[in-house]
Amino acid sequence: MNLNTKGLLPEHMEHRGKLTLKENLKIVENILEQRKIPEVGIDEEHIKLLLRLLSFMDTDKDPNVIQIGEREARVYTKLQRDSVFDFCHGVGRSGNLTDPQPKAPGASAMYKLTNKILESFLKFLGLKVNAIATPVATGMSLALCLSASRKKYGSNVVIYPYASHKSPIKATSFIGMRMRLVETVLEGHIVKVDVGEIEDAIKREIKDKNNPVVLSTLTFFPPRKSDDVVEISKICEDYNIPHIINGAYAIQNFYYIDKLKKALKYRVDAIVSSSDKNLFTPIGGGIIYTKDESFLKEISLTYPGRASSNPVVNILISLLAIGSRNYISLMKEQKTCKKLLDDLLEDLAGKKGEILLQVENPISSCITTKKDPLDVAGKLYNLRITGPRGVRKNDHFGTCYLKEYPYNYIVVNSAIGVKKEDIYMVVEKLSSVL
Amino acid sequence: MNLNTKGLLPEHMEHRGKLTLKENLKIVENILEQRKIPEVGIDEEHIKLLLRLLSFMDTDKDPNVIQIGEREARVYTKLQRDSVFDFCHGVGRSGNLTDPQPKAPGASAMYKLTNKILESFLKFLGLKVNAIATPVATGMSLALCLSASRKKYGSNVVIYPYASHKSPIKATSFIGMRMRLVETVLEGHIVKVDVGEIEDAIKREIKDKNNPVVLSTLTFFPPRKSDDVVEISKICEDYNIPHIINGAYAIQNFYYIDKLKKALKYRVDAIVSSSDKNLFTPIGGGIIYTKDESFLKEISLTYPGRASSNPVVNILISLLAIGSRNYISLMKEQKTCKKLLDDLLEDLAGKKGEILLQVENPISSCITTKKDPLDVAGKLYNLRITGPRGVRKNDHFGTCYLKEYPYNYIVVNSAIGVKKEDIYMVVEKLSSVL
Amino acid sequence: MNLNTKGLLPEHMEHRGKLTLKENLKIVENILEQRKIPEVGIDEEHIKLLLRLLSFMDTDKDPNVIQIGEREARVYTKLQRDSVFDFCHGVGRSGNLTDPQPKAPGASAMYKLTNKILESFLKFLGLKVNAIATPVATGMSLALCLSASRKKYGSNVVIYPYASHKSPIKATSFIGMRMRLVETVLEGHIVKVDVGEIEDAIKREIKDKNNPVVLSTLTFFPPRKSDDVVEISKICEDYNIPHIINGAYAIQNFYYIDKLKKALKYRVDAIVSSSDKNLFTPIGGGIIYTKDESFLKEISLTYPGRASSNPVVNILISLLAIGSRNYISLMKEQKTCKKLLDDLLEDLAGKKGEILLQVENPISSCITTKKDPLDVAGKLYNLRITGPRGVRKNDHFGTCYLKEYPYNYIVVNSAIGVKKEDIYMVVEKLSSVL
Amino acid sequence: MNLNTKGLLPEHMEHRGKLTLKENLKIVENILEQRKIPEVGIDEEHIKLLLRLLSFMDTDKDPNVIQIGEREARVYTKLQRDSVFDFCHGVGRSGNLTDPQPKAPGASAMYKLTNKILESFLKFLGLKVNAIATPVATGMSLALCLSASRKKYGSNVVIYPYASHKSPIKATSFIGMRMRLVETVLEGHIVKVDVGEIEDAIKREIKDKNNPVVLSTLTFFPPRKSDDVVEISKICEDYNIPHIINGAYAIQNFYYIDKLKKALKYRVDAIVSSSDKNLFTPIGGGIIYTKDESFLKEISLTYPGRASSNPVVNILISLLAIGSRNYISLMKEQKTCKKLLDDLLEDLAGKKGEILLQVENPISSCITTKKDPLDVAGKLYNLRITGPRGVRKNDHFGTCYLKEYPYNYIVVNSAIGVKKEDIYMVVEKLSSVL
Repeated sequence: MNLNTKGLLPEHMEHRGKLTLKENLKIVENILEQRKIPEVGIDEEHIKLLLRLLSFMDTDKDPNVIQIGEREARVYTKLQRDSVFDFCHGVGRSGNLTDPQPKAPGASAMYKLTNKILESFLKFLGLKVNAIATPVATGMSLALCLSASRKKYGSNVVIYPYASHKSPIKATSFIGMRMRLVETVLEGHIVKVDVGEIEDAIKREIKDKNNPVVLSTLTFFPPRKSDDVVEISKICEDYNIPHIINGAYAIQNFYYIDKLKKALKYRVDAIVSSSDKNLFTPIGGGIIYTKDESFLKEISLTYPGRASSNPVVNILISLLAIGSRNYISLMKEQKTCKKLLDDLLEDLAGKKGEILLQVENPISSCITTKKDPLDVAGKLYNLRITGPRGVRKNDHFGTCYLKEYPYNYIVVNSAIGVKKEDIYMVVEKLSSVL
Repeated sequence: MNLNTKGLLPEHMEHRGKLTLKENLKIVENILEQRKIPEVGIDEEHIKLLLRLLSFMDTDKDPNVIQIGEREARVYTKLQRDSVFDFCHGVGRSGNLTDPQPKAPGASAMYKLTNKILESFLKFLGLKVNAIATPVATGMSLALCLSASRKKYGSNVVIYPYASHKSPIKATSFIGMRMRLVETVLEGHIVKVDVGEIEDAIKREIKDKNNPVVLSTLTFFPPRKSDDVVEISKICEDYNIPHIINGAYAIQNFYYIDKLKKALKYRVDAIVSSSDKNLFTPIGGGIIYTKDESFLKEISLTYPGRASSNPVVNILISLLAIGSRNYISLMKEQKTCKKLLDDLLEDLAGKKGEILLQVENPISSCITTKKDPLDVAGKLYNLRITGPRGVRKNDHFGTCYLKEYPYNYIVVNSAIGVKKEDIYMVVEKLSSVL
Repeated sequence: MNLNTKGLLPEHMEHRGKLTLKENLKIVENILEQRKIPEVGIDEEHIKLLLRLLSFMDTDKDPNVIQIGEREARVYTKLQRDSVFDFCHGVGRSGNLTDPQPKAPGASAMYKLTNKILESFLKFLGLKVNAIATPVATGMSLALCLSASRKKYGSNVVIYPYASHKSPIKATSFIGMRMRLVETVLEGHIVKVDVGEIEDAIKREIKDKNNPVVLSTLTFFPPRKSDDVVEISKICEDYNIPHIINGAYAIQNFYYIDKLKKALKYRVDAIVSSSDKNLFTPIGGGIIYTKDESFLKEISLTYPGRASSNPVVNILISLLAIGSRNYISLMKEQKTCKKLLDDLLEDLAGKKGEILLQVENPISSCITTKKDPLDVAGKLYNLRITGPRGVRKNDHFGTCYLKEYPYNYIVVNSAIGVKKEDIYMVVEKLSSVL
Repeated sequence: MNLNTKGLLPEHMEHRGKLTLKENLKIVENILEQRKIPEVGIDEEHIKLLLRLLSFMDTDKDPNVIQIGEREARVYTKLQRDSVFDFCHGVGRSGNLTDPQPKAPGASAMYKLTNKILESFLKFLGLKVNAIATPVATGMSLALCLSASRKKYGSNVVIYPYASHKSPIKATSFIGMRMRLVETVLEGHIVKVDVGEIEDAIKREIKDKNNPVVLSTLTFFPPRKSDDVVEISKICEDYNIPHIINGAYAIQNFYYIDKLKKALKYRVDAIVSSSDKNLFTPIGGGIIYTKDESFLKEISLTYPGRASSNPVVNILISLLAIGSRNYISLMKEQKTCKKLLDDLLEDLAGKKGEILLQVENPISSCITTKKDPLDVAGKLYNLRITGPRGVRKNDHFGTCYLKEYPYNYIVVNSAIGVKKEDIYMVVEKLSSVL
């Protein structure tokens, strides 16, 4: 680009202006040059300029184009164009989500760039993996992984150490696979699934001539503990069975990341995390990562048709705007808030004759209640608190086939992005209704 | 809302100002009051205000909220918020795409409103159906329909009168159903699938104790003719077999709409159309409609998890911004342009010793070429023309298992939104390379 | 700028994407290269990119800057930044409005560019002049011209052929000059000022040892006719007296432009036109033009301090967005609408026993009324018609010192931008209240 | 406004959604209800909604309007509309800046609201005054005050205790008043103007039958000390002479505010402050305040014609977005930074054998240099530092007619909005070039 400002300014000012412009453009150029998460977050104006320039590469922006296809990114309002950052052709081709789309060189480059930067971010956190940003949220992303497993390995049954989460169950049902649940057991305050039981389930399915795929859960509400993904990965390696990990909010805490690092030494075909829970995007995108590049390709080939560019761009924006240094700060703050939450709940439990349940969870805490927990949760909702869950001891969905959990309880979270004030406030409110 | 402007203005001006404000607010109120497509399109500012007010209903906008969940619509930049019109919680719940989301009353109301207005629009076009806007494009929407058919009717094989379109094939494979292709035949210049063959395929599958679902194609590139959806619907009714219609760009022309109206008298479980091809949205959304409300519910229950609000809002915006009167004008213009295209191509064919193929298609036309059609298409691409397809006579994907089509040919489209200038230009360019 | 997309795309797509980007950037580069009004208007996205790049030249955008002045363009919200297109330092220096501002090379270049393009636009219309866009509207722009005349020529009295317009009178009073009114006379239906009277006024002031400057009015509501600016220019040349022309909406019609062209052969020191009336900007800017470059410099030197960049950028946007070809169309449409208005009013007058006054005006028409014209205007206001004026025959401000005008009348305008529908509607409404 | 969401949501969610909406609207309503600076700043989305609703009151937004005036706020692009927050008719009438404009009830209410909130802000700071936001910056605002003084009191000479600031001098010359400078004297390191000299100047002008107005300077670069506005106000009261105070950045520090409070007990006709320097707006607006409501009216009557709404809205946005509590924090931070600056400069001076000049200034500091100060400033500019001034001892403009100031020096500022990092950085850089 050559901006001719000659004669519009005195030379020394022109020199200075061009220098300033150059440094601003450098910020944009560097994103494309380095293709990794910046250390310090980049401001919105530079991100907007990057997106503007990339979307100027799509054919529908060609000032000389004649469009006579049946799908030509004719968009009715500017409002709509802006909402997809002018990537009106979306991402993907009918054959492959990550394939470059000839009508949209800009969107295609943007998507590849997003994946590169996403990989650099995961590497920065210690996860040396390949990754793709998906234009669908966690549930649908799990469906993609499981379907890809069927295609590549002929998987026909999903072994699911039970967690009371509808999305994975829906995902399995959506793509038409059978699900074999593995029952939870109680260990102290913790609800968990024995690795031995999982192995048994695998054996039984193999014996029945089936091809199982294991779908383990790394992140979930306590008292359900994380599945032991490391041991499961070892077993899957031993039995040569695909293994998908649901790590919805795994990226925000090193407790989870460390488990993933270890598991990745054995058999892990794909890990799914949420972009909104970890990366502060609006709901709608997901991230899938693995050391197995060819399986990632298979996942991408599984997606039927094109998709909205919006969730992908939102992931790109978050990565660029947050920056690695600030993400580490946010992780630290999350940890500090969790510690504060536990201390305050311990205190509250003491006063109220309740118990802070001994559950191993870096994000969420549980406190018992002698009242009806649904009632307590309802009252908190009315006090303008969103997030806590009240679970009755006899709620089967809360604890699976366990006859009964020993306590009624309330779950409170301290996820990334939470502030100390929030923690103080929620415990104060909790105190008033418990 | 009570805006106290007392004393800020002389009374008569305050009166006039309030009147003008009231009339502007009335436009927004009317959308919610009438819940149907406006006759005259509404401008962006009023649509923005509607979206602003609705998104102010979501709990993450509550000025007094304390958020301690793990998913609290914490979004990093304003840029991202704006891109989803501040509906940061997306649409759907883990259990059901169209279920209201307690954290997002505004997004939930917006989604329901979109579906209502979509239904009114289809009704206006003569289709008395129930409808949902989907946050995924045509391919994935077809996957939802087929999976719902499996759930509700135990369908295990998709009977697909062959059309060379990857998305439906991918969709079927993604959700893990077997596909039975029904072969095409040649009739004059037309490539079509005999209804009798489809019936045979159904019979054979039933005989083999299978539960077939038919996926017919209403809109496709010529020389492939539309499937006879009316006859297929009758057969499906006779055999009590579910029937999904892929009508990607069916809404823009009454040729298709009339066929759909007739088919809907018999067995049609769902019709899928594209939002970008018919409604001028960016790529990313779809619309599914049917007379069978309970099947629509099943489809909605099939979607695993939440989804981005962006594609849904984009459908809403298009419906409001276009208005029914202008949509009819656009349909007329499409028809006029198609007529013009045929006339010009007829002419061109005469000059060049080529043939304007006699294919029955209200959107697209085919002209033969003695040159290599891929070469011709490549040259057109380089002349900045997007959309035309060149197909070699021996391209199996172009014509399925037919040994050979009689001609090499070029397909040119005159879809909704095209302008006469485009038609003149493309034929001029075509003339230079044919 | 070097956007490294290597490896993000297949080479042929990268090539195509870069080509499309290049053509889009070319549009922006051409603005700076050619520095004249484009023939075809440029769309908002390219204009935004131009402004973005220019404002990235201002020192407050320097990523490495340390700001320790007392005025450092620290702006509290992004909303405010956007409203001045990020030209937060405004335009001008304390010494000279058009001087480059060292803190703002980008804004300075933008301002100079605006003036260049403005000049090319005026030249395109046949006016070979120097021009500046001013950050203040017509009234204040007139004040600048008159004050500059005092500085350069020692002018101490403004000779004003009376028109009932507050702004010029206020402008004169604001800068502390005496105003000598020249009385209007009646000629048929027309109210005008005799050139002879103006000459007499000049003579008298000179005789009294004063230094008069003439402020003539080219555009005004009928029945007041345009001053004969050509004759006045000749007289001013003869007497060596500065001459300022108030041509508020002179640019939109060749009737006025032709008069200006002729007048510019004699003594015209500056012409002031409105940016909102002629160029479809929001209210707030003005344009001043003249063949006398040194007087223009004087005017620019007269402005005390810096000013908002908003009105200047708005002029630039209009010039780029409209384009010369479309401006000519708009001028033609204005003319057609005026003809239509006259025909319809003639008709209406016939039916109602009123008269379409024979006033020479290319924009506005007058129809008599036997009713109270204030009443009629009030009723029109209540019928949602903005713009018409009702004037009573004995309104001194309407007609100056004339004892009485022969008729009560209503003025209706057909200014640039008006549509035929508006004309039909206003006459219909007028018919209902007359 | 009545948003009918009935049936779009389950009742309890509708209730919650409406509650959240209501609280959000309440934030907007409260602005109009309370008409004072909020304690806690309001976020951009609510401010935008307020502006949207107000601008929906302007007649050009009337959905049923027929516009046939010559100035109908026809604006060519949405970009331009947005830049004035859709207040396309600007502010003011030809007769009076603050008069309600019949075509623009919304803009008129917005302007009045801005002035009310501005007054509440000044009152919060201890200044019980009437105030108007002006659509022009400090220089032009001073011109308005001086011209109003001429109109109301017949002032014909401006007595200006000399400060080397072009804007007031230009303002005086622009409106055609004579300026009588009062010479500065040296007192220690301070350059000041003796009050006695000012009184003498007044006496002399009165003796010569003139009507002087005093234009004193409260805020200026050291070593020039603030004029003793309290004493000058007393003198002006004694002599019954109008008194205008240039307090460009007076609002940000209580040192100045206290002086103004005291001065306001005597004769102060108007104080002018900058909106960008004190309120973090883009350059372009000013604020004028006084206890004399009728003089404020006179000022407003002085402005010829309408003006851009942009600078006024920007003042409103700042007041709403900052909030009183945060403004106090910013003032405290400014003070802390100034202390830090002095400490660091003291240190630096010690090391370099220079002197931190003993000047009484709450914003800016001066350090001597044995090098050429222009050279030092130039080097700082090249080091990306904007703001510092280098002044040679023999620069007459720096110190007026004083033969010579004892030192070459550099001025460094610590104005509101500055950060500690900036202070550390500038002294570090200064150290490297001094």
